[in-house]
Amino acid sequence: MSASKTVRKVEVLSPVPADIDIANSVEPFHISEIAKDLNLSPKHYDLYGKYKAKVLLSVLDELEGSGDGYYVVVGGITPTPLGEGKSTTTVGLCQALGAFLDKKVVTCLRQPSQGPTFGIKGGAAGGGYSQVIPMDEFNLHLTGDIHAITAANNLLAAAIDTRVFHESTQSDKALLNRLCPPNKEGKRSFSDIMFRRLKKLGISKNKPEELSPQEVKKFARLDIDPASITWRRVMDVNDRFLRKITVGQGPEEKGMVRETGFDISVASEIMAVLALTTSLADMRERLGKMVIGNSKAGDPVTADDLGVGGALTVLMKDAINPTLMQTLEGTPVLVHAGPFANIAHGNSSIVADKIALKLAGPGGFVVTEAGFGSDIGTEKFMNIKCRYSSLTPQCAVIVATIRALKMHGGGPEVVAGKPLDRAYTTENVSLVEAGCVNLARHISNTKAYGVNVVVAVNMFATDSEAELNAVRNAALAAGAYDAVVCTHHAHGGKGAVDLGIAVQKACENVTQPLKFLYPLDISIKEKIEAIARSYGANGVEYSEQAEKQIEMYSKQGFSGLPICMAKTQYSFSHNAAEKGAPTGFSLPIRDVRASIGAGFIYPLVGTMSTMPGLPTRPCFYDIDLDTATGKVIGLS
Amino acid sequence: MSASKTVRKVEVLSPVPADIDIANSVEPFHISEIAKDLNLSPKHYDLYGKYKAKVLLSVLDELEGSGDGYYVVVGGITPTPLGEGKSTTTVGLCQALGAFLDKKVVTCLRQPSQGPTFGIKGGAAGGGYSQVIPMDEFNLHLTGDIHAITAANNLLAAAIDTRVFHESTQSDKALLNRLCPPNKEGKRSFSDIMFRRLKKLGISKNKPEELSPQEVKKFARLDIDPASITWRRVMDVNDRFLRKITVGQGPEEKGMVRETGFDISVASEIMAVLALTTSLADMRERLGKMVIGNSKAGDPVTADDLGVGGALTVLMKDAINPTLMQTLEGTPVLVHAGPFANIAHGNSSIVADKIALKLAGPGGFVVTEAGFGSDIGTEKFMNIKCRYSSLTPQCAVIVATIRALKMHGGGPEVVAGKPLDRAYTTENVSLVEAGCVNLARHISNTKAYGVNVVVAVNMFATDSEAELNAVRNAALAAGAYDAVVCTHHAHGGKGAVDLGIAVQKACENVTQPLKFLYPLDISIKEKIEAIARSYGANGVEYSEQAEKQIEMYSKQGFSGLPICMAKTQYSFSHNAAEKGAPTGFSLPIRDVRASIGAGFIYPLVGTMSTMPGLPTRPCFYDIDLDTATGKVIGLS
Repeated sequence: MSASKTVRKVEVLSPVPADIDIANSVEPFHISEIAKDLNLSPKHYDLYGKYKAKVLLSVLDELEGSGDGYYVVVGGITPTPLGEGKSTTTVGLCQALGAFLDKKVVTCLRQPSQGPTFGIKGGAAGGGYSQVIPMDEFNLHLTGDIHAITAANNLLAAAIDTRVFHESTQSDKALLNRLCPPNKEGKRSFSDIMFRRLKKLGISKNKPEELSPQEVKKFARLDIDPASITWRRVMDVNDRFLRKITVGQGPEEKGMVRETGFDISVASEIMAVLALTTSLADMRERLGKMVIGNSKAGDPVTADDLGVGGALTVLMKDAINPTLMQTLEGTPVLVHAGPFANIAHGNSSIVADKIALKLAGPGGFVVTEAGFGSDIGTEKFMNIKCRYSSLTPQCAVIVATIRALKMHGGGPEVVAGKPLDRAYTTENVSLVEAGCVNLARHISNTKAYGVNVVVAVNMFATDSEAELNAVRNAALAAGAYDAVVCTHHAHGGKGAVDLGIAVQKACENVTQPLKFLYPLDISIKEKIEAIARSYGANGVEYSEQAEKQIEMYSKQGFSGLPICMAKTQYSFSHNAAEKGAPTGFSLPIRDVRASIGAGFIYPLVGTMSTMPGLPTRPCFYDIDLDTATGKVIGLS
Repeated sequence: MSASKTVRKVEVLSPVPADIDIANSVEPFHISEIAKDLNLSPKHYDLYGKYKAKVLLSVLDELEGSGDGYYVVVGGITPTPLGEGKSTTTVGLCQALGAFLDKKVVTCLRQPSQGPTFGIKGGAAGGGYSQVIPMDEFNLHLTGDIHAITAANNLLAAAIDTRVFHESTQSDKALLNRLCPPNKEGKRSFSDIMFRRLKKLGISKNKPEELSPQEVKKFARLDIDPASITWRRVMDVNDRFLRKITVGQGPEEKGMVRETGFDISVASEIMAVLALTTSLADMRERLGKMVIGNSKAGDPVTADDLGVGGALTVLMKDAINPTLMQTLEGTPVLVHAGPFANIAHGNSSIVADKIALKLAGPGGFVVTEAGFGSDIGTEKFMNIKCRYSSLTPQCAVIVATIRALKMHGGGPEVVAGKPLDRAYTTENVSLVEAGCVNLARHISNTKAYGVNVVVAVNMFATDSEAELNAVRNAALAAGAYDAVVCTHHAHGGKGAVDLGIAVQKACENVTQPLKFLYPLDISIKEKIEAIARSYGANGVEYSEQAEKQIEMYSKQGFSGLPICMAKTQYSFSHNAAEKGAPTGFSLPIRDVRASIGAGFIYPLVGTMSTMPGLPTRPCFYDIDLDTATGKVIGLS
């Protein structure tokens, strides 16, 4: 057993009770106990209640000289709409390593979006005996990071429309005078943030009155082209009626109406910035250089041009600190950032992983999750996240289920909310074998980065021994380092001990360096094409709009950024119905957009919904508070 | 000197430095020290970082048998647009009582809206040497209560539009089947919240299949009249382009467009609920009975009818706990709720005051602030807040400035952002004397509640001895218990010691019971007319729309609620330009609305902006983070 003081023995019941009942059946450790086990003292964190603490970024400076733990990323095969238990496996693996194999381990998870918790989906804290607790605190508000993102995102949005409005009614001179009001002695001056814009414009003067009329115009008039504005407002609520709206219809806005819309908050570029930043100073720069649209002359307009990059940083200053929580079995978890997994890169934060690697230390483990299958999550983990973090993973876990493999082998469609076809609940080895082409491609694509690949088969009660063996054999044949069946949902960490041992060996036996799929210094199109080939495509088709955008971003100097493909997670190809391992298709690029502050270009392969809706009976119908005990009921 | 361990001696400088520099010049006590001084142990609160803690509501149960402290409300005369220092006086008075007069004292303040912090206004933590610290934490995010309100408000908004949408495309039977889906055994059942609606409809059946077709229709079809929807979305950002918008323009919403808009978050009815609730169970009921509009048949539709009252309570469960902070001189502050002071009642929360009164205990003091002048803030404090809380104040402080009195005496217009006219900075006793009619009416209106009135003259450097004496004399002549000049902005608590002594005497010498301005069991119109008379009006004029609404609310059974007038704070009358103590006017009621969950009817006297905007140069231009130290700069 582990030497850790916070390991908790959980008695498992069969059949497995509801997630909230399991979560409520244990009393969590005070989070200061979990912190102590990681050698963190109270000066290293801020408490947020009894079960959450924000670990301060300064820990990184303190531990600068110490070594890192092993770095493990958990991805998946191409999933069914039901999900294949990636978060649950991540938690179960860590419980095995920490509570059963006596290793130092830190789990790094994404913060879930609050909106879907009240829609169809329910929470995202893992499940069964592999959960993060308290699950209501994990799913709701947490320590306010997403609320901070919402506030910052929408302050920038308000700044954009208001600036366009004020510029429309004022002369260049009046604008300058308003932007640089006189102090008590009647002197006008530039504020610090204005020097950023002056520098960008190549103006080296220090006082407003020194500007020539031409310079006044360049400095004071952003001249934003309303049609070019890509910055949308956000809200952490499933509100489909905000997908497309018209703003500015009040009489005071004088007819300056504009069509725009809301995304769910986790789709904000600021979420991607939070996930990819490496320090406060880096976050300040990234927030300031976010591009919201173009001037009428075609120049990119940034948050700093609008004077708001500093205020955004102030709103985000606490959000940069990851939140420490615990698993059901008492191992530590860092929850931090949760960017969209298609229009953004779908990985938890770099700073959380960096802190975790120091806290785990040499011989310890950090297990981090990458959204969706390896085509989406792991690819972006490697080519975007690791590129910015300079961290090197040793092992990638690929989570597979018999259910999903049968679907890839030609099983009937799997639809959320409808009963599973009998094919999925009775033995059918040939369906499974046929579906392993999907697994095989995920393995070979992931192996290409130089990591060892361990396949985790997340077992369901209906899976047969022969089916499970078929997957193991196919995985090893495809080059996996190992393939292990696990039962952590039903048994907690104990059910993932074999997986833990396999991951440890995989980490200890890496033979290759990290290799990216593409270098940064090739063209945007060459990078898109490299990724498309990894999907099995034999070519790429660009729409006229995509061509135009690629040309624009190249001209604006952004072609050196990595690429973040916005593609369906339900197929290697652009067509969600194409299961298995499709080849010989041409990948259509409908449009190309950019998150300059976060640091990537994102081509759109098809349409992505960035604002979910509510069904006729949302799950909020079941959610209530027991006002006598203060406990949440009905959350799943 | 005080026996309290957390009293801090602050060395005052002259001239008074910038607020943020004063705030940053002291190291705050760890909030657990402040809590300890109030006899709170760690089980009574949740830490939120080092300088904030949420005091748990359970403290009230524990202290149920113990006595209350004195209860003091701070209001003001009719203000100039610059504000007369009401928050600063509240803090200064408490610093005097706690740090200089050795009293147990708790300050209860409203949480400021975050939006205006980045607009024109800057922060709201008091000023000079009378501040709440850390002021950046006070002004930004705090412990997430307003974010929780935003989330809850907008979940309800999404539920409304989505329900209308789903009802439009489904038969009664299909709706019922979707609302009550079969479980694994194929059985359909009502969820707990559905029984609330069934009860309201007078249907006592327990299973969906027992409903008659008529009952299915009544139960499953809310039949909301889109034109009647009064529930708007909110955001804690000054975003004027959201004042009036059209939603539902996406193709998936099938043309179900609707005109609506956003208010700033503190204008949400949920903020008023938070301020007026007395327990978790009470909050659950209030949130559930909030009315969002009517059915086409004219029946009110509530949050519980939509199935979302429980989820709203879950989102608000931590927000109900007040946040403990500290003043510059180390006295305790509870920050909680900040409802709008015209469309809502503009007072901090009942639960914070209740907890504070127990913590201060017999002989101790609780000083709470009411928004704007006594016509708005104190009137609503008495007739709405004290009615719901059953608490009895002993003393009301009325804050006055020479500046505002001169304005009421006929001085030139005072405009924010423009230099003050010379009349305000040089001695002019007769202007002051003429303006005292405004003060006199605030005194007599407030005295009528049965409390002793102490006038606090918030002194500025330019005020003369003769001017200050004129105010004192006028105040005493108008029936004030005392009138005291204070200099807490420049000198901290020491500058309000005389005020503290006067307040103590006033509290100890109350001779009358609390009297409300109107009973609840008269008609809506009679209540409106009673309030109008207190403004100096000789009558009330109702628009056709107002008549219609009064009739509807009376018919719906809501006429027993107190009245919350939505009126300009810049005059006793409806006309902001009417200074002094106007009489003989007729008060126009443009419209009448209701916050049924919060528990008041609010007549609109003129138009109230519920979403501020940003100027050409918002104060975010000055705000940034020093990324080396992590300190906020430029916040004022």
